[in-house]
Amino acid sequence: MQTLADIGEDALIRRLVAGLTFDAGVIAGPGDDCAVVRAPGAGEVLLLKTDVVVEGVHFTAATPASLIGRKAMARVISDFAAMAATPRYALITLLAPPQTTVKRVVGIYTGLRRLAAEFGVNIVGGETSRAEQLSISVSLSGVARKGAYLGRGGGKPGDKLLVTGRLGGSIRGKHLRFQPRLDEARWLARRFAIHAIMDISDGLGKDLSRLCEASGLGFDVAMESLPRTRGCDVAQAWGDGEDYELLFAVAPKVEQRLLREWRKAFPKLELTCIGQLTGQRQGAKRNGGWDHFQ
Amino acid sequence: MQTLADIGEDALIRRLVAGLTFDAGVIAGPGDDCAVVRAPGAGEVLLLKTDVVVEGVHFTAATPASLIGRKAMARVISDFAAMAATPRYALITLLAPPQTTVKRVVGIYTGLRRLAAEFGVNIVGGETSRAEQLSISVSLSGVARKGAYLGRGGGKPGDKLLVTGRLGGSIRGKHLRFQPRLDEARWLARRFAIHAIMDISDGLGKDLSRLCEASGLGFDVAMESLPRTRGCDVAQAWGDGEDYELLFAVAPKVEQRLLREWRKAFPKLELTCIGQLTGQRQGAKRNGGWDHFQ
Repeated sequence: MQTLADIGEDALIRRLVAGLTFDAGVIAGPGDDCAVVRAPGAGEVLLLKTDVVVEGVHFTAATPASLIGRKAMARVISDFAAMAATPRYALITLLAPPQTTVKRVVGIYTGLRRLAAEFGVNIVGGETSRAEQLSISVSLSGVARKGAYLGRGGGKPGDKLLVTGRLGGSIRGKHLRFQPRLDEARWLARRFAIHAIMDISDGLGKDLSRLCEASGLGFDVAMESLPRTRGCDVAQAWGDGEDYELLFAVAPKVEQRLLREWRKAFPKLELTCIGQLTGQRQGAKRNGGWDHFQ
Repeated sequence: MQTLADIGEDALIRRLVAGLTFDAGVIAGPGDDCAVVRAPGAGEVLLLKTDVVVEGVHFTAATPASLIGRKAMARVISDFAAMAATPRYALITLLAPPQTTVKRVVGIYTGLRRLAAEFGVNIVGGETSRAEQLSISVSLSGVARKGAYLGRGGGKPGDKLLVTGRLGGSIRGKHLRFQPRLDEARWLARRFAIHAIMDISDGLGKDLSRLCEASGLGFDVAMESLPRTRGCDVAQAWGDGEDYELLFAVAPKVEQRLLREWRKAFPKLELTCIGQLTGQRQGAKRNGGWDHFQ
């Protein structure tokens, strides 16, 4: 089996970028020192986000290569869903042991490229280096209309808290195959006043605390109401990471209409009210969830 | 000594972003899922670049922490110099073993932040994960006026090839302390028709081949004319990596005036003509230089 050491960096990069296609926004993709893309229009803002997956942390040596790449791209697209923004341009950083097979790396890029194409993302450049451990970092930039993107910090006391999909047990497979909720988030942003929103990546318990911290509020969640993945208990729905569902807050008067319209627009994806925001600010209390260094 | 495992990811990030300052271009920095920055004006393009430094590859366990961060930021700013563009917004990805000391990580960010501030770069976000090996990736976006940025691909037969500074022996210390040639590149772009330009990161031999490949040309270099770092021989000037000097091509009639004006503008930085571009296209011939996987 061919290794990176066999073919070298330049040949590897040529293989990785061969056949990439770009839309009219790309002035120069891979091949020069920087990628060049058209500036967004005057009414838009640029958004930037980077994310990484590491072997032994976010995937294993047994994970199919294309699913590794898919996950790396899906995670960062999910962050754009969390702002109701439009992802546009990606840079990929690959760290890999020299003995990694070319097949595995090409498989990873196949996964990256497929999901990028599905969501209108252009892979415009990247970087590679040898390392002892395989990792893939995706840096993504995108746009949103001024004032039209959403954040974590606008929750109000009494707001209803809703989550998409079901929570917990992602490690059984969803963490590799989840669908970023980009269409759903942009649908929400167009039709409703969403006060605060984020994607649930480190577990509901931890991420809800972050949303509350950003909004200066506390929360009151009915634990038994959490939408659980089949076979998961409440603790898993609360504490497991990598759900990549949306968590958001809306005024109470909006809740019922939103739930009705949601069922028509996304009949296959559950939307559940799990509780509400409260005026009492919480401390850094955490009930489970994922911390990369602990 | 405190480790990342002691304080956890959130506390680490809070320490790393505390006191960061932003210019008026930043709408939202760290703290939400994405950073938000003002869109460039209609007459501008956005440029994107990512780069990584890995322990054992680009620095060692003995490298002072602030110089690791400095190098990580300087390398990617050097890529903007290579396009005569203006770097603006950086995202930092830190991979680190949990037993890494907080002091070391904070030191790395001190180096990142100092050089970023010196060059007008805003650190607007980032990502951390545990890994077996320490690495720092910097993803940088920036702007240039439409049509005013430079690339590798515009060289013409007969163009003179010039390099800034001296080449070779960077491993003795320059690789940690080099100054990105951003001011020099933008000065060149404003005053002269620069046909092709890049920064020399993998060694002159390898990078000159890349410039020639992008321009569809060959080269004729007088090896004895290479500006060598004190104590380095021609082979080192040709083959050592990490010079981070500029290599560029201009029409022969421009050369003398450019050299004169350069001496007035940058009296402390040498500029040397090392040869010329030729019409005969070269293959992928390589004479030394650095390849990450071989």
